[in-house]
Amino acid sequence: MQAGYLFPEIGRRVTRFAAENPSAKIIRLGIGDVTEPLPPAVIEAMHRAVDEMGKREAFRGYGPEQGYDFLRNAIAENDYKARGAEVSADEIFVSDGSKCDTGNILDIFGTDNVVAVTDPVYPVYVDTNVMAGRTGAADASGRFAGLVYLPVTAENDFVPALPDRHVDLIYLCYPNNPTGTVAKRETLARWVDYAKRNDAIILFDAAYEAYITSPGIPHSIFEIPGARDVAIEFRSFSKTAGFTGTRCAFMVVPTSVTAKGSDGAKVDVHRLWNRRHSTKFNGVSYIVQRGAEAIYSPAGKTQTRGLVDFYLTNARLLREGLSSLGIKVFGGVDAPYVWIKTPGSATSWEFFDRLLSQAHLVGTPGSGFGPSGEGYFRLSAFNSRENIEEALKRFRKVMA
Amino acid sequence: MQAGYLFPEIGRRVTRFAAENPSAKIIRLGIGDVTEPLPPAVIEAMHRAVDEMGKREAFRGYGPEQGYDFLRNAIAENDYKARGAEVSADEIFVSDGSKCDTGNILDIFGTDNVVAVTDPVYPVYVDTNVMAGRTGAADASGRFAGLVYLPVTAENDFVPALPDRHVDLIYLCYPNNPTGTVAKRETLARWVDYAKRNDAIILFDAAYEAYITSPGIPHSIFEIPGARDVAIEFRSFSKTAGFTGTRCAFMVVPTSVTAKGSDGAKVDVHRLWNRRHSTKFNGVSYIVQRGAEAIYSPAGKTQTRGLVDFYLTNARLLREGLSSLGIKVFGGVDAPYVWIKTPGSATSWEFFDRLLSQAHLVGTPGSGFGPSGEGYFRLSAFNSRENIEEALKRFRKVMA
Repeated sequence: MQAGYLFPEIGRRVTRFAAENPSAKIIRLGIGDVTEPLPPAVIEAMHRAVDEMGKREAFRGYGPEQGYDFLRNAIAENDYKARGAEVSADEIFVSDGSKCDTGNILDIFGTDNVVAVTDPVYPVYVDTNVMAGRTGAADASGRFAGLVYLPVTAENDFVPALPDRHVDLIYLCYPNNPTGTVAKRETLARWVDYAKRNDAIILFDAAYEAYITSPGIPHSIFEIPGARDVAIEFRSFSKTAGFTGTRCAFMVVPTSVTAKGSDGAKVDVHRLWNRRHSTKFNGVSYIVQRGAEAIYSPAGKTQTRGLVDFYLTNARLLREGLSSLGIKVFGGVDAPYVWIKTPGSATSWEFFDRLLSQAHLVGTPGSGFGPSGEGYFRLSAFNSRENIEEALKRFRKVMA
Repeated sequence: MQAGYLFPEIGRRVTRFAAENPSAKIIRLGIGDVTEPLPPAVIEAMHRAVDEMGKREAFRGYGPEQGYDFLRNAIAENDYKARGAEVSADEIFVSDGSKCDTGNILDIFGTDNVVAVTDPVYPVYVDTNVMAGRTGAADASGRFAGLVYLPVTAENDFVPALPDRHVDLIYLCYPNNPTGTVAKRETLARWVDYAKRNDAIILFDAAYEAYITSPGIPHSIFEIPGARDVAIEFRSFSKTAGFTGTRCAFMVVPTSVTAKGSDGAKVDVHRLWNRRHSTKFNGVSYIVQRGAEAIYSPAGKTQTRGLVDFYLTNARLLREGLSSLGIKVFGGVDAPYVWIKTPGSATSWEFFDRLLSQAHLVGTPGSGFGPSGEGYFRLSAFNSRENIEEALKRFRKVMA
């Protein structure tokens, strides 16, 4: 399995280097995991919920599979109505993670659906389709037969062209992992139009939505007219509020989305997903849902904004620092990822090895996200300020 | 979808009755949800974990998808080694629920596998196979074409006969939901032998294991010699420690289990599941895993034992009280469910309506679990002592 190879291979190289250089202080800017603690409002809410679970009169057993109303209402109100997007609480499915959601959603689509992904791409989209049997073998470049790859590189300003053949499912991730770029309103509108004309469904991954700061950039696909008929959106508290180890996310499946069945008839996707979700899932921990709800309290909003701003400042320092060294830098404005062009003619893995051996820095080779990522390199802003500043010092030495 | 009909239909009838009889104090002995709060050891452990998540130096981001070692080791030690069953920590996959696990495991088996279930049966086994496309249409009795049904009734002492045709996957649930009966060592040994001879896999659901009190009854399929080659076990903290709203469970997939691939070659099931699990799941909340670990502390063991004994006393009161009224009672000794024969010639639903209208009691019609459940009725011991005693008083009136 090609796509599962990236992070284990990074792990192997780092482990080997660390064993051979035990005194090296390695800084990891590779994997996209948060480093800062949960906001106080979330901590307080979870303490209260734990206490409730210890008292007979407040104890909660099975909750609704789709999530408690207190959380679904807070999401609908703050993430959608406040932005003018029409999403109601009963269209929100609370889950334990977007990785699970983007994989699980495939359960309701037949294996003969044609899938489009960008290249480079978050590997889970590809892996789960490979596992579902929706692809053929991979070619030498790592592209699987049966998938439609849409290159996103500096040459097309990281805007994927529409597919040149019919596709049924389209994964779009904005703010983008791994490139850190965002989609303008007209880009998303073009995709909604394509989906309408082709009876296609857009799987819109907005896990990094909280990082959008540029005015005019849509935060949700549902800000685009018509998207309610053709799109499913994935959101997560992992990067918004540091929930990577706490686990809470949600999916929006509008009641108006339809798919074309194998007999040509329209299928109600919301109903189908509700059946799948409630049959194979039993809801997110009550304690965790109370923690997620607290993100929407006035204190929670201020604190999570502070958390996101902290990482965005890291991203800005990386962008500015690397630019000043003559490195071409993309992303990192509305996203926690900085996507750089490897200096000179270095391949992604050559640059990885050079950074590791000369600067004891770990990043992620762009080619690991797809062949069009070759010659690029991903740096994550999820780290302490101290490590980011130290990393920049080391970059300066390596580039000198 | 036939199987998804049971609990919604109960809900509809109860809602209608409650609307027409607003003063009726309805007691629900239907759904299998716990009522008592979490044990103090679990509460304390989760408070500590919440505090850790609020401090930078103790904060945890992504954990291992398979679960933290502290929990996997506690499970291996206490649930397996202590009972003489050979299961190592790396064969344990921590998850957010057995309902999810029993559905998700189907991802790694082709749709042409023949599946056997008991009749009556926990509906999720059937529903998930229907959704995966492993069945044909349902007949008038509700049995789906393509599934092999093994009746369990008073006539065969609730011991299913071996299938009269080849099957690839066998669901066994002991202590059993809905009948509350258990399997003796020789019964399980016969199934392990069948699985070995037929290259079949046993999916062993032991969610109610904590309720086994009779000596000699196996607590795990892995107490049976040879089971490590043919069985996967599902366990849950839901009923052991009141985790239905907290969400934590685990699956044991021995490294020695093999399945026969479509090309006849042996497939390593542990490896296949590990790939599926780590690609489509991101681990259980750190806070919840710390809560689950506390179940294995000396205080946690005493407290959870107290919790289980409380429900088992409810079950005994139901058994004894109903027997004394001349009702035939099964189960309820090593399980929180009491399975009764409906009095006279009443069908399961007729008895449901009679109990609801005359005694304001809600139970679960046996026929909802499968056609062989017709004429039976399930009562859950998950309730307060007060409600159990009041329910028995009302039974006495109805049966008088």
